[in-house]
Amino acid sequence: MKLKPLGDRVIVKVLDAEEKTSGGIVLPDSAKEKPQQAEVVAVGKGKTLESGTVETPDVKVGDKILFGKYSGTEVNTGGTDYLILRTDDIMAIVS
Amino acid sequence: MKLKPLGDRVIVKVLDAEEKTSGGIVLPDSAKEKPQQAEVVAVGKGKTLESGTVETPDVKVGDKILFGKYSGTEVNTGGTDYLILRTDDIMAIVS
Amino acid sequence: MKLKPLGDRVIVKVLDAEEKTSGGIVLPDSAKEKPQQAEVVAVGKGKTLESGTVETPDVKVGDKILFGKYSGTEVNTGGTDYLILRTDDIMAIVS
Amino acid sequence: MKLKPLGDRVIVKVLDAEEKTSGGIVLPDSAKEKPQQAEVVAVGKGKTLESGTVETPDVKVGDKILFGKYSGTEVNTGGTDYLILRTDDIMAIVS
Amino acid sequence: MKLKPLGDRVIVKVLDAEEKTSGGIVLPDSAKEKPQQAEVVAVGKGKTLESGTVETPDVKVGDKILFGKYSGTEVNTGGTDYLILRTDDIMAIVS
Amino acid sequence: MKLKPLGDRVIVKVLDAEEKTSGGIVLPDSAKEKPQQAEVVAVGKGKTLESGTVETPDVKVGDKILFGKYSGTEVNTGGTDYLILRTDDIMAIVS
Amino acid sequence: MKLKPLGDRVIVKVLDAEEKTSGGIVLPDSAKEKPQQAEVVAVGKGKTLESGTVETPDVKVGDKILFGKYSGTEVNTGGTDYLILRTDDIMAIVS
Repeated sequence: MKLKPLGDRVIVKVLDAEEKTSGGIVLPDSAKEKPQQAEVVAVGKGKTLESGTVETPDVKVGDKILFGKYSGTEVNTGGTDYLILRTDDIMAIVS
Repeated sequence: MKLKPLGDRVIVKVLDAEEKTSGGIVLPDSAKEKPQQAEVVAVGKGKTLESGTVETPDVKVGDKILFGKYSGTEVNTGGTDYLILRTDDIMAIVS
Repeated sequence: MKLKPLGDRVIVKVLDAEEKTSGGIVLPDSAKEKPQQAEVVAVGKGKTLESGTVETPDVKVGDKILFGKYSGTEVNTGGTDYLILRTDDIMAIVS
Repeated sequence: MKLKPLGDRVIVKVLDAEEKTSGGIVLPDSAKEKPQQAEVVAVGKGKTLESGTVETPDVKVGDKILFGKYSGTEVNTGGTDYLILRTDDIMAIVS
Repeated sequence: MKLKPLGDRVIVKVLDAEEKTSGGIVLPDSAKEKPQQAEVVAVGKGKTLESGTVETPDVKVGDKILFGKYSGTEVNTGGTDYLILRTDDIMAIVS
Repeated sequence: MKLKPLGDRVIVKVLDAEEKTSGGIVLPDSAKEKPQQAEVVAVGKGKTLESGTVETPDVKVGDKILFGKYSGTEVNTGGTDYLILRTDDIMAIVS
Repeated sequence: MKLKPLGDRVIVKVLDAEEKTSGGIVLPDSAKEKPQQAEVVAVGKGKTLESGTVETPDVKVGDKILFGKYSGTEVNTGGTDYLILRTDDIMAIVS
């Protein structure tokens, strides 16, 4: 059973704090809006602009990303929690 | 008697919790905005963009979809409840 | 005496509950936003988009439609009540 | 002394209730937003769209129209009251 | 010393009530939004639309205009009060 | 040390009241929104429109301008106070 | 471990007050909205406009910039605090 996100939506799996490496991303306690890390598991076709052009998403399956903490909609499939984001909620790719 | 949705509208039949398979989608109790499953029964021609282009919907009759819980307008025809959504309310296709 | 709706406006006659057939549309009591049935009596030329394109309405005179209960402006001509809707207020054609 | 409306503006003379014919428009007491009748006395060149296209108004001098009761700006010239509307405030032409 | 208005701005001199001719514009006391008369003293190049097109203003220096009472920004140069309006604040040319 | 404004931003030095000539701009005490005079010290490349066109600013370094009193962001460099405005905040060029 | 900003996002390192030179930028205490200095460490591809055009950012890695104090999202990687801004939050390049 799979989820195929539509339009500018992206499905991600939120990464546990434990997955961060020693030299990795540390999210500050006092951040105004705390970003979180996640791994991309599915990507929609992209946002359709008013001109009719489809804007291809800048992320692909397997990318680790940063997103705003209060973004997205939670969903659970096969016992695993996922989050459905819009591409504009994704701030950066972590590499 | 049939309903033909207009523009970017889609008519769906909300799926009962009982229809979910053992390995299927489980909707979390604590979700910020709980998505629900439904089956598409009719699809409009799509959204007309400011450029005049019509954006063909990404769903077709028979697709199982996830949508935001508080989206849409309820309607009952032939004793069955349906929901009229806009294509942008549909988050993902379940397969 | 006739009314010719302008732009994306459509004039409809709201259908009485009594006109519904036994197997027809039943509107739920508990609906969040209850749609109503009406018959189209006049159609404007359509909405002018920012590109200058005119979007032809998807309804024609005689169509039975569903629209959101609180949409439109009431008008009475020749002793009959009508409602002036915008095309985007029309959710579906009933056939 | 004349007023030449600019852009998408139209100048109208509101019609008295007495001018309605016996089989004519009767405006309902309980209307959510009561439309009124008026006669067009001057028409601007039309609305300029973001594309640069000018949308020619669908009304001409002498047309009797219906408009939303709270639309427009009152002005008095030569002892007569007029109303300056925008073309989008005009719902229908009465014929 | 001169003021050259930018973009869709127009500089006007508000006309005193005394300048109105006997058969001229009389502004109603009870108007919802009272328009005022003014004479155009300088005109900007016009509004730049999203398409890049510049919309040439429909008024020229010397035109007498009607504008909404609460529009614009007051400025005084050479002892005279002026008002800086946007072209869309101008409702009609008086001739 | 220099500041190069980005996009549709312009850097100005607010002019003291003492710099006004005897026949110059006098800002009214009772103005609804009091404009102020300033001299342009740096100009960005202009606003990028949705069409991709860049709108060249209508002001250049050295121009004296009028702007709305509460516009802009204050910055101090080399002991001098400047204001960063957007081009649309500038109402007129004073000459 | 690196962060690659997406779309119109830019990653910057906020500069300490101590890094300012004697003749440099002094931020006023009483500023309505206090801008801050930062150094650009990574730049996204730019904003996608409705026309489909991508607007190339006007800043590059190493640029010192001014941005509005309350803009952006804090993130910490490798023990260093960064800020993720949108290009429109950047007011000027300091040189």
